[in-house]
Amino acid sequence: MILTVTLNTALDITYRVRSLRPHASHRVSEVTERPGGKGVNVARVLAALGHEVTVTGFTGGATGRVVQERLASVPGVVDALVPITGATRRTIAVVGDRSGDTTQLNEPGPTVTPTEWSAFQEAYEHLLTSASAIALCGSLPPGVPVGAYAGLVRTARSAGVPVLLDTSGEPLRRGVAARPDIIKPNADELAELTGSHEPLRATQDARRRGARAVVTSLGAEGLLAASPEGRWRAAPPSSLHGNPTGAGDSAVAGLMSALVEHLPWPDRLTRAVALSAATVSAPVAGEFDRGVYEELLGRVTVTSEASAA
Amino acid sequence: MILTVTLNTALDITYRVRSLRPHASHRVSEVTERPGGKGVNVARVLAALGHEVTVTGFTGGATGRVVQERLASVPGVVDALVPITGATRRTIAVVGDRSGDTTQLNEPGPTVTPTEWSAFQEAYEHLLTSASAIALCGSLPPGVPVGAYAGLVRTARSAGVPVLLDTSGEPLRRGVAARPDIIKPNADELAELTGSHEPLRATQDARRRGARAVVTSLGAEGLLAASPEGRWRAAPPSSLHGNPTGAGDSAVAGLMSALVEHLPWPDRLTRAVALSAATVSAPVAGEFDRGVYEELLGRVTVTSEASAA
Repeated sequence: MILTVTLNTALDITYRVRSLRPHASHRVSEVTERPGGKGVNVARVLAALGHEVTVTGFTGGATGRVVQERLASVPGVVDALVPITGATRRTIAVVGDRSGDTTQLNEPGPTVTPTEWSAFQEAYEHLLTSASAIALCGSLPPGVPVGAYAGLVRTARSAGVPVLLDTSGEPLRRGVAARPDIIKPNADELAELTGSHEPLRATQDARRRGARAVVTSLGAEGLLAASPEGRWRAAPPSSLHGNPTGAGDSAVAGLMSALVEHLPWPDRLTRAVALSAATVSAPVAGEFDRGVYEELLGRVTVTSEASAA
Repeated sequence: MILTVTLNTALDITYRVRSLRPHASHRVSEVTERPGGKGVNVARVLAALGHEVTVTGFTGGATGRVVQERLASVPGVVDALVPITGATRRTIAVVGDRSGDTTQLNEPGPTVTPTEWSAFQEAYEHLLTSASAIALCGSLPPGVPVGAYAGLVRTARSAGVPVLLDTSGEPLRRGVAARPDIIKPNADELAELTGSHEPLRATQDARRRGARAVVTSLGAEGLLAASPEGRWRAAPPSSLHGNPTGAGDSAVAGLMSALVEHLPWPDRLTRAVALSAATVSAPVAGEFDRGVYEELLGRVTVTSEASAA
């Protein structure tokens, strides 16, 4: 199975309102809820592609119970979340009917105790014995040490399981130094890591800092990848309209899916770009449109960047 | 015991953010939660005053479970909520650190089925056999008939239990026709009921429509009351600064508390105004400051309006 780790799981709530006005009272016309956090999103896409996936991370409180109830109804996803005393966070996306624009409110997440963090590490070591690949995704909740991902990367490497890291800031900086197989920053996260705003140069620099392969997401322009096997640009056929929520998580799912099928890099990138684009164009935020995905698989262009460096 | 009915119970959530900006992403710095809905707020104040209170209405889903867990820890409040399949609603108050202003997001509430509404009416009939007074409070969730409060008022009157109605719009209009002992509209709700924006005249008119007594809240100016025993204005000693959230519910609690103690109308109004003012000046929205309340009891002025009509 593929293991995805979401240390700061969430219940993602979407509210539809006519138009959000500060200091006013709003009647919410529609409420939708689903389990979230980047690794949970990645797992849902992997399961939809037919992979066996296990999700781990933390769950607690009434919100954690809802997350677990909902996960239980997602076919192909196994819940291996570790219980904690604190409550799983909620995120609220307030979407205006008129503008379609989204205002986001994110709870900080529970404080994880040292004992709970130790319990997680033990569960993780046990889970990775049956994992074909691991994705470590998202921010760290309060109480989890900033070097957490570095430790989890090292444990995976000791066990010989390929590991992808998708986070930002100091947890990314420390995680990269532990030599993950793949990191997938966006252009801003990469600039923060390397100090360079030139994506090709920064992607190369991130490899020198320890990542075996770097896949940088460039938004609507697709992906830029640098690995020991070569450097490529992968782009969707045309610029896409829609909601970019979850597009990055779908790209991670595409990379993981192709990784465990031992596909070469150009095919991995094709799958990641097609899934990402099919997520942007889906009517529901974070879902992907299977028809669009399958059609795009034949229309993503992958160009070698070997001569550019 | 005093029975309070909250057909649209809620979990009231407060988010602190630096400043709410539409279309931006916000980190919530502080999350607080408590059981809400007007009748639940009334019950909490009554319990704090030393009364035995039972709350009924509906509870469902994960949010309903949280409401019940929290109610269980409020001394003096007995939970007699009726379970339903739909989920209890949340309300979210987003408070800006800089401005202190509040932006409110209210979920619509669960849809109540005809079978669930029948089950509630049965539970209500049973509860009122041991009730000394009843407060019917707040909006109706989807599925509950618009004449619901009219029916509940008639049932209470048949059982000889005094009943206060605090709602608005069509449920208020129909409820008033069923002859409740007290209604407590604010000036807007009263104008909608009577068509008159002159509070004294509108208060008198609401009595002609069926209410035995009408207590109109005039915000910072206090209360205006008309009953078979006379007409009064009750005002706090000076205009108050603070958060008016819950001030109306505290006024209802004051009226109910004095009603079951068989106090005359001027004393009922004094208690209602003092509690309401002590709620406005409390640091936490919806709580009341006991010291301020006790001090204000001696400083509320009640003036007979007998000569003005």
